[in-house]
Amino acid sequence: MDFTSIIGNVAALLTTISFLPQAIKTIKTKDTGGLSFPMYLLFVTGVTLWLIYGTLNNQMPIIIGNLVTLILAGIILGFMIKTQFSKKFKRRLR
Amino acid sequence: MDFTSIIGNVAALLTTISFLPQAIKTIKTKDTGGLSFPMYLLFVTGVTLWLIYGTLNNQMPIIIGNLVTLILAGIILGFMIKTQFSKKFKRRLR
Repeated sequence: MDFTSIIGNVAALLTTISFLPQAIKTIKTKDTGGLSFPMYLLFVTGVTLWLIYGTLNNQMPIIIGNLVTLILAGIILGFMIKTQFSKKFKRRLR
Repeated sequence: MDFTSIIGNVAALLTTISFLPQAIKTIKTKDTGGLSFPMYLLFVTGVTLWLIYGTLNNQMPIIIGNLVTLILAGIILGFMIKTQFSKKFKRRLR
């Protein structure tokens, strides 16, 4: 593997696994206060499109990388939706 | 442009601009509580490597996309470092 490919692979690995500590933190603390909902909505939609792009081009690294990111960012987005809904529900009960 | 290229371009656009609402929220609220520091450290390092990869391969879309993401994610990381430092400083003053 040449130098450029190594740089590309390490870059892909880092940007993919970076969402793991965020997902763990969000699951543990259930604190989604500082997180931007539009960010995760745009990001999850974008990663889904990357997954479709990788599938159409039959590019395994793009498929695997974006599948992992989709799962991690999807968990975070799911938590944010859950928190928003339970807040609204509690407000309605008052 | 064929269908696959359009999907790829929209995917790149969405994942790139997704950090804009997060950066705006973090600047406005200065609330970095829910954000994961290791996530932004890994992510900013990964995006920097993507930028080097794009430069070595002379691929303009990779260079531009990751430069924008680096600025946005870098602002968020900068705010997190600033918040951590001022917390430690306040603790030392007590």
